[in-house]
Amino acid sequence: MNDSIKVYPHVSVDCVVFGLENDHLSVLLVERSGHDVHNQMQHNFKLPGSLIYADEGLDDAAHRVLKELTGITKLPLRQFKSFGNPSRVNNRKDILWLENAFQLKIGRIVTVAYISLCKIDRQLNKDLEKYTSVQWIPVEQIPSLPFDHNQIVDEARGEISQWINRDPSIVFELLPPKFTASQLRTLYEVILNAPLDVRNFYKRIAVTDYIIPLEEKEKKVSHRAARFYKFSRTIYNKGKQKI
Amino acid sequence: MNDSIKVYPHVSVDCVVFGLENDHLSVLLVERSGHDVHNQMQHNFKLPGSLIYADEGLDDAAHRVLKELTGITKLPLRQFKSFGNPSRVNNRKDILWLENAFQLKIGRIVTVAYISLCKIDRQLNKDLEKYTSVQWIPVEQIPSLPFDHNQIVDEARGEISQWINRDPSIVFELLPPKFTASQLRTLYEVILNAPLDVRNFYKRIAVTDYIIPLEEKEKKVSHRAARFYKFSRTIYNKGKQKI
Repeated sequence: MNDSIKVYPHVSVDCVVFGLENDHLSVLLVERSGHDVHNQMQHNFKLPGSLIYADEGLDDAAHRVLKELTGITKLPLRQFKSFGNPSRVNNRKDILWLENAFQLKIGRIVTVAYISLCKIDRQLNKDLEKYTSVQWIPVEQIPSLPFDHNQIVDEARGEISQWINRDPSIVFELLPPKFTASQLRTLYEVILNAPLDVRNFYKRIAVTDYIIPLEEKEKKVSHRAARFYKFSRTIYNKGKQKI
Repeated sequence: MNDSIKVYPHVSVDCVVFGLENDHLSVLLVERSGHDVHNQMQHNFKLPGSLIYADEGLDDAAHRVLKELTGITKLPLRQFKSFGNPSRVNNRKDILWLENAFQLKIGRIVTVAYISLCKIDRQLNKDLEKYTSVQWIPVEQIPSLPFDHNQIVDEARGEISQWINRDPSIVFELLPPKFTASQLRTLYEVILNAPLDVRNFYKRIAVTDYIIPLEEKEKKVSHRAARFYKFSRTIYNKGKQKI
C-alpha cells in the first residue's frame, strides 16, 4: 500500500465556452481578484471553474459553476477530458488564491474539463450582462492564464476541430439558415485555426450534396453579390454511412 | 461557501481493455476477493482500476494500475470519460471491499476511465499469464460488476463504435494484412454490436477505394474460397478531407 494515496486530491470542473460572433471565435473567461504574495491586489483571467460539491455529479457541477460564475444557463456542455498533472497546481500565486477563495488547504486538484461551442447571441449576452467580471476574449488574444488553463484551452480548440471534421453538420448550426460560401469558409478557418485554399474549398462545396445552392443572392453589398446556400440535414444524414 | 466541498472525493482510474480474438470481443476483468457483510469470502469481477497516487498523472496512473493488476505493459490507453455520479460508490459490499483493500475511510470516488482496443496475441497473453485472477470475459457474458463498472463498459463499447465510424482505419489494424470480406464484416459487427446487411456491406466494400481486392484467394477451406483484400493507408489518408 502506497501512503501517497492518502493525500486526497480535490476535484474541480472547468468550462471552456467558445463563442462565435461574426467571424470571430472567443473564449469566455472570468476575472479573479485576490492578494498576491506581496499583499498586492491582483486581477487576472481564468476559465470558469470550481471545486465540485460532495453531493453533485460532474455534469451538474459544470452547469452549476458556469451559472454561478457567468449567469449562463441552458448551454450544452460536453465533458471533454480530465487534467490531472500533479504539477498543475504548483504556482505559489495560484495556491494562495485558491486557499483564500476556498478557505481550504489545497494540495492537488484533478479537473474535469467541459466544452461548449455556441453563437454569441442576444440571449447569451443577456445571461452575462449582470456578471461584470466575465469577458469574451478573442482566441488570439488569450493572456497567460493560471494553472494549466492555457493548455486546456489549446486542447479544447483541437477538440472542436475534431468535432467538425467528424461531424461537419455542427458548422451549419453556427451559421444563419442562408449563408454564403465565404461565410462557410471563414467559419471553417476560424474553428480549424488554419487558412484554407479558397479554390479547393469552393470545389468541395460544389461536390458536397448537402450544401445546396439557392437562387437568391446577397443584397445591398458593395462587392459582387454572392450566392446563398442552405444546408440539408436530410441529405447529410443519408450520406453518413461509410466503411 | 458550501461546506460540502470539504468532503474530499478520491480519484481513481479504471481501464476498459477490449481484446479481439478470432471473431470475439472480450473485456479484461480482474477478480477481487474479500469478506462481505456476513464475513463470507466473496469473489467477483471488476475492471482493473485503483486510486491514483498523489504524485502521478492520470495517464501514468492508468498504465501503472493496469500493469500492477494484469501484468500488461505497452498497451496504448486512451482517456475516455470521467465518471463521478455521487451514488456510484453506495453499495455496502463495495464500500467494505474498498475500505479493506485501501485501509481508508472511503466516501466518494471520481474515476477517470481509459480504453484500449487490441488483438489478443501471444505477447499479450504472455504478459497476463502470471496473473491468475485476470480473465478475458466475452462482452456478451459480462456479469454484474461492482460500482458503475457495467455502465462504464457499456459506454466504452459505444465509444469504440464511434472510433471506427470516425476513423475506419482502426479496424484494419485489428485484421491480418490480407483479409476476406467476411472477416471485415464480422469485425464490424462485433465492434458495432449490430448485424450488418450483407449485400449492402459488400457493395460498400466494392466502392471503397482504400480496400483493395487481391488476386489471391483462401486456400484449403471447406467452403468456396473467398478473395483476399488489403487496406491501403495511402489512399485512405488522401480521401479523408471533407467538408
